[in-house]
Amino acid sequence: MAGDTHIDRLIGLFSRLPGLGPRSARRAVLHLLKQRESMMLPLATAIQAAAENVKTCEICGNLDTVSPCAICTDTRRDPAQICVVEEVGDLWAMERSRNFRGRYHVLGGVLSALDGRGPEALGIEKLVNRARDEAVMEVILATNATVEGQTTAHYISERLKDAGVKTSRLAHGIPLGGELDYLDDGTLGAALASRQYY
Amino acid sequence: MAGDTHIDRLIGLFSRLPGLGPRSARRAVLHLLKQRESMMLPLATAIQAAAENVKTCEICGNLDTVSPCAICTDTRRDPAQICVVEEVGDLWAMERSRNFRGRYHVLGGVLSALDGRGPEALGIEKLVNRARDEAVMEVILATNATVEGQTTAHYISERLKDAGVKTSRLAHGIPLGGELDYLDDGTLGAALASRQYY
Repeated sequence: MAGDTHIDRLIGLFSRLPGLGPRSARRAVLHLLKQRESMMLPLATAIQAAAENVKTCEICGNLDTVSPCAICTDTRRDPAQICVVEEVGDLWAMERSRNFRGRYHVLGGVLSALDGRGPEALGIEKLVNRARDEAVMEVILATNATVEGQTTAHYISERLKDAGVKTSRLAHGIPLGGELDYLDDGTLGAALASRQYY
Repeated sequence: MAGDTHIDRLIGLFSRLPGLGPRSARRAVLHLLKQRESMMLPLATAIQAAAENVKTCEICGNLDTVSPCAICTDTRRDPAQICVVEEVGDLWAMERSRNFRGRYHVLGGVLSALDGRGPEALGIEKLVNRARDEAVMEVILATNATVEGQTTAHYISERLKDAGVKTSRLAHGIPLGGELDYLDDGTLGAALASRQYY
């Protein structure tokens, strides 16, 4: 591509990142090569440091430098609620929204016969055991509103039936600022079905 | 963002790359953390290696592990033509298109009073001296079709007046596969002005 092996190798690796194609990978690499001291070397160091120091939390599956993670050990957080998300990125999204003060369980994916991903791969046994703890009152299933996400949520709700907790899932409806005209029928239907009375 | 300093630092650096926003930076970092052995550590090593080994060619400004670069020292390439491009990325584009077999001069930008980038910053003196070499017959100005690019090309063409070389610039016109209906007036006008007779 660039003719030089070091550059080509770097572009190749960058282009394998999600959201980066060969073109944006080339731009990124050129950008780095233009700013070696201020960007390129710090990036190499930061990647190395993160790779060595970031662990998966043994309790919830979150990523942190410590395990159990800062959320699991934060005593100001409500131990009564566990929010089940598919990926760490979803956990981050929840945290950014600042609407949830409980703890998490990160599945690390969804049930998938195709990829041979079963309940054990998603740590559902571990979740059920956590739910059995009398401190836990509710498990909120915050999987994506996809077929796989909803199937996984349904399966988990079944598994939690005799765990002595309330099980809930996020509401479907019109996104804030969403225009009916641009909404898909499914969302519109869900919003209508779970309409709220004044 | 992610709460963890190592991860946040990494996301911060990624989000400063061109074409990556905070969101795609988060996705990229999560992707890396999920594949440490196969992606994350190799990437850190590759960045380090490139940062240490890639130099700017003392003749043309290209990036390569050797200086003079592989293109400048490639005896199969035509020494009679020098193609002037703004950035190394443009040189790569020319090389990918396999249409040019001469050598290059990479400006590393365009003339800009705003950024205080003058002729010396673009190595134009060096280019003029190369053009004076009797082996060099033509300088092709392949700057972008932007105002700055064209201004820079015009300035260089003036500087080359007494260097004893032909000076040319890339043709403007309809891109291959381009539909008139979607073309801007400027391009259409240029295509019409430089129409070719059968």
